[in-house]
Amino acid sequence: MANLCHLGTASVTRQLQDLATHPYNLAREGALQADGRIEKYVCSSGPFRLLYSTQRVDERVLDGLQQLADECGLVEQFVRMRSGEVMNRIDGFECENRQVLHTSCRDLFTANPKSPEATAKMRAELDRLKEFLGDVERGAIVNERGETFTTMINVGIGGSDLGPRAIYEALKPYGLPGRSVQFIANVDPDDAAEKLAQVDLSRTLVNIVSKSGTTLETLTNELLVVNRLREAGLDPAHHCLAVTGQGSPMDNPEKYLRSFYMYDYIGGRYSATSMVGAVMLGFYLGYDQLLEFLEGAAIIDYTAENRDVRENVPLLMALLGVWNHNFLGSASLAILPYSQALHRFPAHLQQCDMESNGKSVDRQGGTVNYLTGPVVWGEPGTNGQHAFYQLLHQGTEIVPVEFIGFIKSQYGSDLEVKGSSSQEKLLANLLAQALAMAVGRPDENPNRNFAGNRPSMVLMAERLTPQTMGALLAIYEAKIVFQGFVWNINSFDQEGVQLGKILATRILESMKGRVESGAEVEKRFLEAATTGINTTHDG
Amino acid sequence: MANLCHLGTASVTRQLQDLATHPYNLAREGALQADGRIEKYVCSSGPFRLLYSTQRVDERVLDGLQQLADECGLVEQFVRMRSGEVMNRIDGFECENRQVLHTSCRDLFTANPKSPEATAKMRAELDRLKEFLGDVERGAIVNERGETFTTMINVGIGGSDLGPRAIYEALKPYGLPGRSVQFIANVDPDDAAEKLAQVDLSRTLVNIVSKSGTTLETLTNELLVVNRLREAGLDPAHHCLAVTGQGSPMDNPEKYLRSFYMYDYIGGRYSATSMVGAVMLGFYLGYDQLLEFLEGAAIIDYTAENRDVRENVPLLMALLGVWNHNFLGSASLAILPYSQALHRFPAHLQQCDMESNGKSVDRQGGTVNYLTGPVVWGEPGTNGQHAFYQLLHQGTEIVPVEFIGFIKSQYGSDLEVKGSSSQEKLLANLLAQALAMAVGRPDENPNRNFAGNRPSMVLMAERLTPQTMGALLAIYEAKIVFQGFVWNINSFDQEGVQLGKILATRILESMKGRVESGAEVEKRFLEAATTGINTTHDG
Repeated sequence: MANLCHLGTASVTRQLQDLATHPYNLAREGALQADGRIEKYVCSSGPFRLLYSTQRVDERVLDGLQQLADECGLVEQFVRMRSGEVMNRIDGFECENRQVLHTSCRDLFTANPKSPEATAKMRAELDRLKEFLGDVERGAIVNERGETFTTMINVGIGGSDLGPRAIYEALKPYGLPGRSVQFIANVDPDDAAEKLAQVDLSRTLVNIVSKSGTTLETLTNELLVVNRLREAGLDPAHHCLAVTGQGSPMDNPEKYLRSFYMYDYIGGRYSATSMVGAVMLGFYLGYDQLLEFLEGAAIIDYTAENRDVRENVPLLMALLGVWNHNFLGSASLAILPYSQALHRFPAHLQQCDMESNGKSVDRQGGTVNYLTGPVVWGEPGTNGQHAFYQLLHQGTEIVPVEFIGFIKSQYGSDLEVKGSSSQEKLLANLLAQALAMAVGRPDENPNRNFAGNRPSMVLMAERLTPQTMGALLAIYEAKIVFQGFVWNINSFDQEGVQLGKILATRILESMKGRVESGAEVEKRFLEAATTGINTTHDG
Repeated sequence: MANLCHLGTASVTRQLQDLATHPYNLAREGALQADGRIEKYVCSSGPFRLLYSTQRVDERVLDGLQQLADECGLVEQFVRMRSGEVMNRIDGFECENRQVLHTSCRDLFTANPKSPEATAKMRAELDRLKEFLGDVERGAIVNERGETFTTMINVGIGGSDLGPRAIYEALKPYGLPGRSVQFIANVDPDDAAEKLAQVDLSRTLVNIVSKSGTTLETLTNELLVVNRLREAGLDPAHHCLAVTGQGSPMDNPEKYLRSFYMYDYIGGRYSATSMVGAVMLGFYLGYDQLLEFLEGAAIIDYTAENRDVRENVPLLMALLGVWNHNFLGSASLAILPYSQALHRFPAHLQQCDMESNGKSVDRQGGTVNYLTGPVVWGEPGTNGQHAFYQLLHQGTEIVPVEFIGFIKSQYGSDLEVKGSSSQEKLLANLLAQALAMAVGRPDENPNRNFAGNRPSMVLMAERLTPQTMGALLAIYEAKIVFQGFVWNINSFDQEGVQLGKILATRILESMKGRVESGAEVEKRFLEAATTGINTTHDG
């Protein structure tokens, strides 16, 4: 990567800074009508279409962003990543030093996968999964009473929870008849207690997901569930599956009905298309729809190799994000899907983006002198319109928005009220919000004045299906990776989570009255938090 | 309010700006050990205890914040609000011009409520609710087949959804046996379809909540549910309740089994303790636990009148928030409850805070020249630790955190793994994160270096119960209101949501081929979004 530039060294950065002193004014009279802008600023990749006329860019800015992409070799690095280069590293310092091959999990639909060995491993796991699912389906694998399994509990946290859960929620209408899935993630014992109260354990498969096989929250919740199985007179080894690294403590046929493998080149937050997501999705959706989901992601991976920023949705989204964050100064990014089914997708992206790009050290170990990843947050529309949109339109913080919408609903169950269907209202509201943020509206009453000129973009597809869900996931994965390349950071490790683990151990020791020397602060903080809590009161 | 200062005019503002040039350095050796800081920087209100030694403040800053509170008359304004002054206004401009009396709904536990008339109305509604709930309980009100009602569907959006839903989720273990609640909010037809698939409509009460009785999403979803009831051969007037303004289109005994009233002095986002929350919570928790919830809120309202910032949790939280946002420059605020039961509470606060304080115009109609409300977001820990905490510890954005924790779990179902219970691990992790953000840890490997000096605070109570949930809600309501006073904005209207509604109507017209003159942009944007969407692909 020696010859590649980044945001701090690219020659075009200065030019973009100049352009950012007078960015396109979306609130100017006729700003959106000009030059066929609305139709011209549309970009397609696979089943998705990106409308970006409501961004504060013009041809000069787009040319500058193209140059930035070229100077930084963004697509070149993406291809190298897909081909198995060790991208998870910091030159000259101890680091994970791993390949980054989540894309290999879906590189199944071509005769020439980019990383043949990794894709062959995935194929082998998928074949094992297909056989297992077939056995469950036709009753070759059944419970103690000879009944079929109807429910899965997914036990995992972080990347082994958020992505799979968001996708499950998104694809609920596509489930096989009678199948359902519950998720347990939090070490909070109330989380497991509530979920376990909702299932018939005798007909439940428990899918325990941990790459290392040592994640404390997951082992704790596994034990909770295993105890419950035993209390119910059930054999855990007959109900539990593992998704883990080959050779990990969880790769154990005596304890698990099956162990499916993930590999150290699959980062947790990028693992939804590996066996981490595939076992649960295969159980719920069936194998064929699982493949459709993977194919949707694969389509995007191929289109993401297009060097033209105007014809590559994830690349363009990445660069527009850099424009808003680094050049126009926004601190956070809102992702607002107009689809209730996507209600957990922003939480997954919050993880994928912030854990990848919330970094301050570059890939040579230096401290960056520009902003890296923004805060990412969001909730589904139209709900949000009745909540935080006030700030988006009239607040002092400028928050760029990525809207996500679909032309058709999933269930097709709808009705007309006041001349339009709910799905039409949903879409109309989405588009209206993007326009309102852009154009604003002057009013003599200052409290009713909308200054406008607030950037957003709209990502559209026909319908939320297994295939479009796979594509949507891959668009964001590629976008995040492209941004990491622009910022010259390692988007694939997460050293920032380590210190908390160490201090938590010290506090647990304090709770047991074992205070190590040097752990005085932890002890005092614990005491301040837990002593003198009032439990009764009167008004 | 003529004589009161605000952030732009208070004499202490300049002094605080000076102090902000060299704020307390939490990462300095011994910074937390000094001067009994950990024990001294603890503040209690009702059942909650706030630890704030991990904020970047010292005695001079706290004195400055006390002076800011005094100069701005924050507590004085809070008392005036509670006493019925018309606080929802902009001087000299058309505005809602209403009292702000959500606190009157819980001012039930004293002989001398601050707004006797409003509290008397709430008492009357509560009496009607008590009678109704009693009838449901003892089978005097039953379904067509003489069976009791077990389920409630809550139909509402924004303030009629997020607060009640967050509280329901938080108090799930306290429900009456056999009772459950579902929520339909989104105009997305898939939302209603999915929820309706989960209930036995014959044993379901439908609680339709809209102050005006004209909220489009809610009327649409009401009609969806009513059609389903009819299709199932059930009489909607026998299943539907309304919570609405007296005299609204929904105040109609022919259509509803009962209509309960809310009043124009209760803002949607502050309405969880009015009948908006009370009908659903009363059904689920029973009347007595509903009262405990209201009492928890009342306790905080009383303690929030304490003028000493060091002895008033919501006031102190408000001022620490202003310190971080306006003086130290943070753009967003993370609210991270270490309780899975509070998983929707950040979304409620996102609404309550951002809709209240995402404003740019002051109460005299001028444009503010300082920042108002921040972006508010959050997810439960420990889940978040495996997701976005990377950015909190090592990102380039500084995000202040408000942690929320409890000493005991709700269900009491727990087990020991590696020498500690899950609840102990949960609490240890919470405290560890606050400490890690504050003190950091130097490391020769730059990628493993933690700079620290990132502010957070910890809000603790013994257990999440109806009473502590009421208190927690009221703490945040008061905090938000105090901040609005500091910023001299009207925290009680939401003009910023209007423009989107107008443009949505224009786009709906466009969909029907009726394009008004001047609506060309809407038409073109709609066409760009919906034409040429690819539906089939190959890799």
